[in-house]
This record gives sequence, C-alpha cells and structure tokens, in this order.
Amino acid sequence: MAKFLTDREDNYAQWYNDLVIKADLAENSAVRGCMVIKPYGYAIWENIQAGLDRMFKATGHVNAYFPLFIPKSFFSREAAHVEGFAKECAVVTHYRLKNDENGKGVVVDPSAKLEEELIIRPTSETIIWNSYKNWIQSYRDLPILINQWANVVRWEMRTRLFLRTSEFLWQEGHTAHATSQEAVEETERMINVYADFAEKYMALPVIRGYKTENERFAGAIDTYTIEALMQDGKALQAGTSHFLGQNFAKAFDVQFTDKTGKLDYVWATSWGVSTRMVGALIMAHSDNKGLVLPPRLAPTQIVIVPIFKTEEQLQLISAKARTIMASLQQAGISVKFDDRDNLKPGFKFADYELKGVPVRIAIGPRDIENNTVEIARRDTLEKETVSTEGLPERIKDLLEEIQANMFKKALKFRADNTFRIDTWNEFLEIIEKQGGFILAHWDGTAETEEKIKEETKATIRCIPFDSPEEEGRCIYSGKPSKKRVLFARSY
Amino acid sequence: MAKFLTDREDNYAQWYNDLVIKADLAENSAVRGCMVIKPYGYAIWENIQAGLDRMFKATGHVNAYFPLFIPKSFFSREAAHVEGFAKECAVVTHYRLKNDENGKGVVVDPSAKLEEELIIRPTSETIIWNSYKNWIQSYRDLPILINQWANVVRWEMRTRLFLRTSEFLWQEGHTAHATSQEAVEETERMINVYADFAEKYMALPVIRGYKTENERFAGAIDTYTIEALMQDGKALQAGTSHFLGQNFAKAFDVQFTDKTGKLDYVWATSWGVSTRMVGALIMAHSDNKGLVLPPRLAPTQIVIVPIFKTEEQLQLISAKARTIMASLQQAGISVKFDDRDNLKPGFKFADYELKGVPVRIAIGPRDIENNTVEIARRDTLEKETVSTEGLPERIKDLLEEIQANMFKKALKFRADNTFRIDTWNEFLEIIEKQGGFILAHWDGTAETEEKIKEETKATIRCIPFDSPEEEGRCIYSGKPSKKRVLFARSY
Repeated sequence: MAKFLTDREDNYAQWYNDLVIKADLAENSAVRGCMVIKPYGYAIWENIQAGLDRMFKATGHVNAYFPLFIPKSFFSREAAHVEGFAKECAVVTHYRLKNDENGKGVVVDPSAKLEEELIIRPTSETIIWNSYKNWIQSYRDLPILINQWANVVRWEMRTRLFLRTSEFLWQEGHTAHATSQEAVEETERMINVYADFAEKYMALPVIRGYKTENERFAGAIDTYTIEALMQDGKALQAGTSHFLGQNFAKAFDVQFTDKTGKLDYVWATSWGVSTRMVGALIMAHSDNKGLVLPPRLAPTQIVIVPIFKTEEQLQLISAKARTIMASLQQAGISVKFDDRDNLKPGFKFADYELKGVPVRIAIGPRDIENNTVEIARRDTLEKETVSTEGLPERIKDLLEEIQANMFKKALKFRADNTFRIDTWNEFLEIIEKQGGFILAHWDGTAETEEKIKEETKATIRCIPFDSPEEEGRCIYSGKPSKKRVLFARSY
Repeated sequence: MAKFLTDREDNYAQWYNDLVIKADLAENSAVRGCMVIKPYGYAIWENIQAGLDRMFKATGHVNAYFPLFIPKSFFSREAAHVEGFAKECAVVTHYRLKNDENGKGVVVDPSAKLEEELIIRPTSETIIWNSYKNWIQSYRDLPILINQWANVVRWEMRTRLFLRTSEFLWQEGHTAHATSQEAVEETERMINVYADFAEKYMALPVIRGYKTENERFAGAIDTYTIEALMQDGKALQAGTSHFLGQNFAKAFDVQFTDKTGKLDYVWATSWGVSTRMVGALIMAHSDNKGLVLPPRLAPTQIVIVPIFKTEEQLQLISAKARTIMASLQQAGISVKFDDRDNLKPGFKFADYELKGVPVRIAIGPRDIENNTVEIARRDTLEKETVSTEGLPERIKDLLEEIQANMFKKALKFRADNTFRIDTWNEFLEIIEKQGGFILAHWDGTAETEEKIKEETKATIRCIPFDSPEEEGRCIYSGKPSKKRVLFARSY
C-alpha cells in the first residue's frame, strides 16, 4: 500500500493528496470543490470536535444553531464585511423543481423564484447579530457566549482536500459583551484555547500573533491567529479569533442599557477553526509510509496483529489478544484486534502504518510461550519486545511519550526552519530555496507588505504576541521598524 | 413566567408554541421557515445526538460527511425518488455576488451562473450512492454501515418550530449490503434502535410498524416507522427506517462481485431521525407550568436554589450547596447552583419548572440546622424534606424513578387513548371528539386509505409489527380484512 505514496521529497503536494486518498480520509465528490469526508477522516474530525467542544464548554460557552441561509440584503449591512465575504458565495434563487415537459428529468420551476435571494452562509456574523438584536436589551443579558458547529460554503476556484474546499465543516463562536475590554479578553482567551488545543492534542506548535490590517477578517478591528509550520516550509493558519468592536452591533442596531442606564452598542468577537485542521495534522507529522497521528486524536490508538501459521496458533493468540484488548479498553485506550485471516501480517503492518495508528502490538507463537508481545511505535518506527505484565500501564505511558515526542519533533523542525533575517537578499534566498518561518523587520505599511507578497509570494503571517521591541530597519524599504514580524509562504 | 403560557386545554397549538418560545428552546429566524435553535433547545438536541450516536456505534456504524449540494440531474435517476423529493427544494443557480452599480448593496452576478443547478440536499441517498459506486467492487467491500449528522432543506409552506421547518438537523444512515436479507435485518435493527431510544431516553412509548405503500419513503420497498401519541391525541412519526431494495444501486449502477464471482446490484437501507424529536419530547410530557424533561435528556438534571434573607445565611447555604453539588457531580449528575441574589426563590422555582429541570433542591436556614434539604420533583410536583445523608444515592434513584414514571404515565395515556373500533360511526366519533390511536380493520387498498384521509384527516400511521392475524371487515368499505391497522390524525 505504502508504495503507492509519492515521496514527500519528490512532490510534497502529490504526497499529500496521495496520502489523503490512500489512507481513506477523504475524496473529491461529484460536486466541484466539495469533498466527501470518509469514515476514517471523519473520525479524526470527531476527535477534534470533542476536544474543542470540551474546552469551549469549560470556558463557559454553549452551543446553538442558526440558519444555513442568509438574506442577501444582510451582507450589505456591514461595509467591510460585504467586501470580504459577499462575493464568492452560493446563491439560492428558486425553491421548487418540476418535471420537464419533454420528459427529461427535472427542471427549475421558473414560477418559484424567491423575492430575495438567499446566500448559503460563508460565515454567520450577519444572521447571528440579527438574532442577538432581539436577545439583548440590558447589561443583564450579557455576555452571550455562543458557539455553532456548522457547514459553510465559500465558492473556491482552486480546491485541495481539507485545506481549501467550497463546503467545509467548522465551528464559529459569536460572543456579545458589555465592554470593549471584556470582548478583547474573550478574543485572547479563544486564541489561547486554539493554541492549547493545537499543541496538546495535535502535537503542533503554533505561533500566536496579530494579523496585519491587510490580512484581517472582513469586519474585524483586530484578528489574532495561530500559525503552524508544515514540513514543506509553508505556513498554515490553523485558527483565528476576531475582536469585532461594535461593527456588527452598529450594522444590526444591537444596543443595550448599561448599569448606569446609558444606551451603548454591544461589543463582539468571533472565532473559528475548521476541517482544515485535519489537513494541518496530516502535513505536520506524516511521512513517506503514511499518516503519523498523535495518540490524543487517533481514531484507533492501538492495533493488535496476530502472527500465526496454524489455526491452533491463531486461537491461542486470539485468546491472549482479547485479554490484552479488554485490559487496554478498561484503561480508556481505543484498540482494535485485526484477526482477518486472508491478509498477511506484512500487509497489515503497512496498512496500519499508512493509517497512522500510534502503536502496533504483534503477538506470535513465541510470545505466547514467553508471555511477551512486540510493540512498534509509529512515530519512530522502533520495535521492542516486552512482557505482558503491566502492559496497560506501559502502553498508557507510551502513548503519552509518543504524544510528547511528536510535539518535540515538530518544535525542533520549526526551530530549525525559523530564520532571523536582516537583509533582503537573505530573505529571497531563504524563501526561494528552503522556505520556513522568517522573522524580519517590516516598516508597518500595507504597500511594503503588498510588494513583498508580489515579489516573493510570502506574506506576513502575524506579528507575534511575544515579539520583543527591537530597533531595526525594514528588510524591503530600509525604513525604521520596532519589531520583527513573521513571514512565510502559506497555504 | 409560567403565567404567560396558554393552557394546554384551551389551545394546544398555542400552548406548544408559547412553551418553545418561553422556555427559550427556539425561535423563528429572519429566513422564512428556518428556526434558530437556542442554547437550551440545542442542549437537548446534543443529548439526543450523544445517546443515538452511542447506539449507532454500538451497532457497528461509523460517521462520515457528504456534500450539502446535489447536482440536479441526480434526482432524475431514481424514478420514485424524483416524485417524492425533487419538488420543494432550495436551488442554487449562481456562485457569485457583486456590488450593485447603483451603489445599492450587492446583486447576483449574472455571469456567474452554474451550468447545472445544485439542489440543497433534502436527503442524501443520491449523492451517497453516487459515491458508493466507487467504493464497492466486491462482497469484501460490504457491508458499508455509514451514518451522517447533517442539515437538510425541504421547502415547507407551513412551518412549526421543531415539528416542521424548511431547514432541519438530522442524522441519516445509509447502508449497503450483499444480500436482501442482511439489508432487511439492518432496517429492522435500526427501527428497534430508534424505538429503544424513544422509550429509554425520551420516556416515550412508541408503536413499531410498517408504513402502507402510500406513506412509504420515495424510493423504498418498505418503510418501518415508530409512532408516538401526543397529549392532544395526535400521532407523531418519530423515526423511520427504509429497506430500499436495489433501487438506488440500479439508479447509480452500483454492482458487486459476490463470493461465487457473480455480479449483482447492492442492497440498501436508509434511516433517519431529526430535530422533530425535540418537538415530540415537548408535546408528550409537558404541562401548563412548562417543560417536563426526562432526566436522561435534561441539560440540567438538578438545580439547587438557596432560600435566604441575610448575606450570612446565603454564605452558610452556599457552602452547603457547593458540597452537595460536588458530590452530585461526582455521581455523574449534572447540577446547577443558582445563587443569583437579584431574583426571589419563587421566581426561580417557576423558571425551573418552565425549563423542565427534573429535580429542584431548595436549602433554607432551617435545613442548615437540621442537615436537610427540600426536594421537589418536576414530574409530579411533589415535595419532600430529606436528610443530606446519602443524598447522591437518593438523587440518583430519584432520577431513575422520574424517568420510569414519565414513561409509565405516557404509556397509561396511550392505553387510555387507544381504541379498538369496528364501525365507521365510532371511528368518526373518536376522531372528531377526542382523537387518539384507533386500531381498526382496513381492506388494504390505497383508495380506501385515501377516502378515509379525505373524510377525516386520519391516516394509517402504520401496520403494527405485533398486530395479530384476525378476521374482520374494513370499517370503511366493509370488505374483508385480516389485520387491524393504526389510524390517527398526525403531525
């Protein structure tokens, strides 16, 4: 199986696509730009959802659901938003089909035309703030801390499985606050939740920072982002959190009476991550043999493969395997026993390596005699024969070790591929030859940002929160700068 | 709060609508026919989802996700399906908006017209079987046991919150099998899963049976249903499971090689339940004071309300309440402590009755002295003062008792409102005067079924699985019949 994968080094884009297809994560559908998320890929997304949902609830949020459709006129209400979002959208114009009079299937019924077209939500600020208008009268109604798990549609011309699709799944938080400060704190809280999730669940180190004005969400006062480095040296924006100020409250006339009896507009945030995270997970860790999944998100953490020649051996091994399986499950570990007898162990090994199962346990006749099993780690591909005594504890520790090791490895990769650059020539060389994160000075103007993008395809991924004050000169314009920003080519 | 509810007896439909609004479950949105599911309503749906998802996985199913859009031509492929589904659908015709030249917001860009219109899925058989075509070659690829949690759209002219909305949330299972028998078994398995869920989680007794040909899913060979009786004597179809035969496999040319090397079309099932279940839950149990939620689906199972006059009393009570809360949470019970000091206990009591919280615990100064609390059940409205000793166990038992009692009460209501009728006059009288389930003989023809519907608005809800063979005569035509079927007016 693994032999069908293109090598990462030969063609990274092809390797990624092969991997998504061969590992049975997703595929393109009959509808241009829309993917089918297959069960194995969806199981990863379910684990991402479960982890994030727990974190959202632990920070006081609740879930709700708003309509898929947004009246067209809503998009014109917030000036910046319309520029950013109202363009590449799916538009519903009719609500009925009828039989073709020539007997050729169905046609759109021209008499069933909507008075106002409906847009499939590309994001839900407008429809949600139109609801909040009726929910908020006084400071007592605040804060509202709502999240929504939903599908959204942005008509994309060039799509890639998980990374950019016309329909995708995501969550979008939409909160309403009585003060600017509270909303800013919420914006920060949620970018930190995303960063924690990326680092602790996805084993993916991220850089937290501010987006430049150019790269901000349409309608936001400030956008915070987490940026991760992929193995090909390109950046991937894995989540964003927006401080929306009073823009949407003003657009939808949402005012509240504060404690002093004064009327004011409500302060807002929104924040989201999507199925794109699955793409990030794949690209950050996987290798030429297939997926490498962090234990905390792997649909199957352990697979047990029996090595046998005779039916009698299989029976002995199966009994042992089932005991081990039960003890692992009791320890809260997800485990699968693959006793299919029409496939060779070597084929199974390759298949579970392709699928990125963190730990493989092989049991042969000699293991039965010796009370041992062979443990193979997917991250390092190391094998070890160990006693079955105390196995659940050992496996639990091993899963944690793998989780930590994957993070450490990704962190080292990022460190090895982050460059502090002070000249334009160095910048060009790094960007063209090897990619990676570049920390460099920038004069703070949109013009320079735009020129650098035109000439190198590199963008400012963010102004890192922890970027220290430092005198310097813009690598492009030579003008004075007080801080380094993070450049990279990106997905 | 409760005083704003219309009484059930005065106007059941208005009572239902008031309840959904006042209990903060859902509301109508700016988009005709689409609702906003508010956090409290969505929390009930999350509990429904979690319970069903566990049951689906325990029966071997996995989740996946297919596109929201279906190419128009797909609807013409299965003849019966097109008649049933291709009509009242939302149709996407364009994929871009642009700024109005007169500066009046945005307009649809006429140059961005799709070559083939896309339909928002009203159900996903077509797009899914179009995918299965590529997934299935041999019997080894079968069975496929996939479920999808998704939003769907059916353009409805008359909508009611939860019961009938243009967009709704649901799950749809789509399975593929090598034999007819296996598919029929799956169809049965899933209607039984739904019935178990309705009875054990929703405390809602249901009648399992076959739909008549008239009432079958468009494209199905057989449709199984679970039918529940609401408090106004109308039936509600709470879930369906369809044996699709080879209809969709033929429409999408999905063939497989069986063990003998012979090519055959694949056998299919599909099954679904939706946010309608929330409507059923409300209508089956609630009263003039508000919701009555079964403990297994209640977002909050226990609320603790302090009764105090002085700040000192509140502090003593709060300390006690927090101890109790911790011990209940440790026992896996969801509990809320409402220490808001700007609302009177009486207001809180009414509010939690409106919200259907199964058990209320009140703690006053005397309870602190006596080491007691007052427990109030939402289902019976009974109150009791009990010792705090062993409280978690007692509460756990009480929640189970409430769950069982709610089921028993609904079962009794159904028994009291189910009538074995042998004459047309009795039938008319029951249907007009009190409603309920009617078990009566029917001659098996679609004509009679249609006539009865026209004259009484009653339909055949199902032919119950357990309806015994019995000689009789059709209540309408007088022709011979071998079985009673279940009639009712319905939602």
